[in-house]
Amino acid sequence: MKIVNVGLPGNNYDIMIDEGLLARSGELIAPLVPPRSIVAAAADENVWRLHGESFSASLHKAGLKHRVVIIPPGEGSKSLEGLAALYEAFADMPLRRDGLVVVFGGGVAGDLGGFAAATWMRGVRFVQVPTTLLAQVDSSVGGKTAVNLPQGKNLVGAFHQPALALIDPLLLRTLPARELRSGLAEVVKYGAIRSPRLLADLTGGGELDYAAIIAECCGIKAGIVARDERDGGERMLLNFGHTFGHALERRGGLNHGEAVAVGMVIAAFMGEAMGLARPGTAASLRSALTDLGLNCVCPCPPAELLPALAVDKKSEADGLRMAFLREPGQACLKALSFSEIKEILGKAEDRWKTQE
Amino acid sequence: MKIVNVGLPGNNYDIMIDEGLLARSGELIAPLVPPRSIVAAAADENVWRLHGESFSASLHKAGLKHRVVIIPPGEGSKSLEGLAALYEAFADMPLRRDGLVVVFGGGVAGDLGGFAAATWMRGVRFVQVPTTLLAQVDSSVGGKTAVNLPQGKNLVGAFHQPALALIDPLLLRTLPARELRSGLAEVVKYGAIRSPRLLADLTGGGELDYAAIIAECCGIKAGIVARDERDGGERMLLNFGHTFGHALERRGGLNHGEAVAVGMVIAAFMGEAMGLARPGTAASLRSALTDLGLNCVCPCPPAELLPALAVDKKSEADGLRMAFLREPGQACLKALSFSEIKEILGKAEDRWKTQE
Repeated sequence: MKIVNVGLPGNNYDIMIDEGLLARSGELIAPLVPPRSIVAAAADENVWRLHGESFSASLHKAGLKHRVVIIPPGEGSKSLEGLAALYEAFADMPLRRDGLVVVFGGGVAGDLGGFAAATWMRGVRFVQVPTTLLAQVDSSVGGKTAVNLPQGKNLVGAFHQPALALIDPLLLRTLPARELRSGLAEVVKYGAIRSPRLLADLTGGGELDYAAIIAECCGIKAGIVARDERDGGERMLLNFGHTFGHALERRGGLNHGEAVAVGMVIAAFMGEAMGLARPGTAASLRSALTDLGLNCVCPCPPAELLPALAVDKKSEADGLRMAFLREPGQACLKALSFSEIKEILGKAEDRWKTQE
Repeated sequence: MKIVNVGLPGNNYDIMIDEGLLARSGELIAPLVPPRSIVAAAADENVWRLHGESFSASLHKAGLKHRVVIIPPGEGSKSLEGLAALYEAFADMPLRRDGLVVVFGGGVAGDLGGFAAATWMRGVRFVQVPTTLLAQVDSSVGGKTAVNLPQGKNLVGAFHQPALALIDPLLLRTLPARELRSGLAEVVKYGAIRSPRLLADLTGGGELDYAAIIAECCGIKAGIVARDERDGGERMLLNFGHTFGHALERRGGLNHGEAVAVGMVIAAFMGEAMGLARPGTAASLRSALTDLGLNCVCPCPPAELLPALAVDKKSEADGLRMAFLREPGQACLKALSFSEIKEILGKAEDRWKTQE
């Protein structure tokens, strides 16, 4: 078993990564549950159909009383309405302050269930059992929980660190290929901002060792988050590719990883256009992504995404800070006004096209 | 001006108390607002009609750009629907992460607006401008924010400390008498658990010095909260009278202070019935409350409230911890099972009746 410790002041917790861990979840969760208390499992519907029995059996074996609340799959559940449904289920159980929430599913279940845990009775403890590659390498680390509003993604949320995260790479075997690729885009992001070796492993052509990949990504994120929990500086590096990525995702048609893949390529070419990045950085990043099956063609002229950037919650009154690459494995932040972004985007597009 | 400092680690803030402070709110808030950022005022409708012009003028004079979102008066606004309305207004402004929320009103505006601030973009700073006595002595200290669910009060919430609280006792002149009495019940609570002198001042018959009373209550609460932010121990003393009080309030007919007044009398007689309290403590508390115009008659047999206690969010699987008095000015906590509560309640009722 690989263990990544996330060392936040007052919120130290472990991420455990091992094949077959799901079947052991009961015994690993049990120490967090006071006698006669309840475990509220907030589970994605598809995940529950495939793996609910194994999970339930494990909790039962550990003597844990639990109730399940099913989250309909899809981003639509990550809404105020989806949240109200969880609260209603918690009230009916009833889930008390000493109870535990286990979120079991991908990013939607994690973000929604985590936010419900953060705000139920002003905060109950929760355990992450992420089941998609995207959630395993990203949303289970760092304590960001949120729901969407019609006006934008993740506009409502809280920082709430899990008490434990359990990651079973075997669950990826039942993950649809498109979902797996979406997760690989985030893995590429970690390589791009911090680890050239990870980038090389991904594109080496051999079979991917997911346990090792997940542990490396979680380790990178855990280090960054421990130094900057509240997202004031270094943590914004993790946003590489997400400025345009979020705008693309909201536009529809692309899932999170697909949108971030395009967003990373846009940002990489912008970095070159500004002279921040070593020439060739963007093309090599794009080739790593396409090798993994990620189509990096922007479905619209990037300039059309500019109005959506202004409502991004990371934007300030007249611009935003974006993450850029200097070279593969090395990233930096730069504050830009919206008019600067527009200008640089034009230059980046020229580079992008000539290098296609 | 009286200043009470609330010294929480990482969340140190001041409560400023002075007659006429509302007209100075702009200059006092201004240091918290970055240039070109926005102030979102979440204001109770009645309060805004009476005092909105003065508040707006003060912000305008300080050069602060602000938008107002009106909260319909009454507990009904402190709901998920009321919360969604605030989020929508924030998105429309748009309120960014560097913006500031000012909550302007009583407990409903404070709890709802504070929770919206706690969760908007995972937390923006906020300023409390409480306008009822209840909010001035209670809800502006301690960072508890919440909304109600149909299943119970304050089931959803967060701990979010304000950056500043501004209290203008002159606002109490426009407060309905029943609301003022409701606040006095909480003032009696502070006296009962911590300050015999405050109890004596309240019942001395002279004109009440509200600035001094508010400062003393805030000081008591600030001290307790600084030692126990997350409500694990000492802070539960502040819950004196609230176990039965919340149940009574949910039942309808009584406002918060009126319900807490009855709840305190129930708890005080229970304390005597258990031999925890010096005999006569309960009767003297009841007489202080009735002197202030608070009717301390329980509108139903107290035993009828027992089922409602089990869903109180402070309750555990088989009982709860309640605050009791030892004597006026001294309180303690005791864990009781629901069956013990039932038994003690019977004995307390006998005492209550014989001393009426």
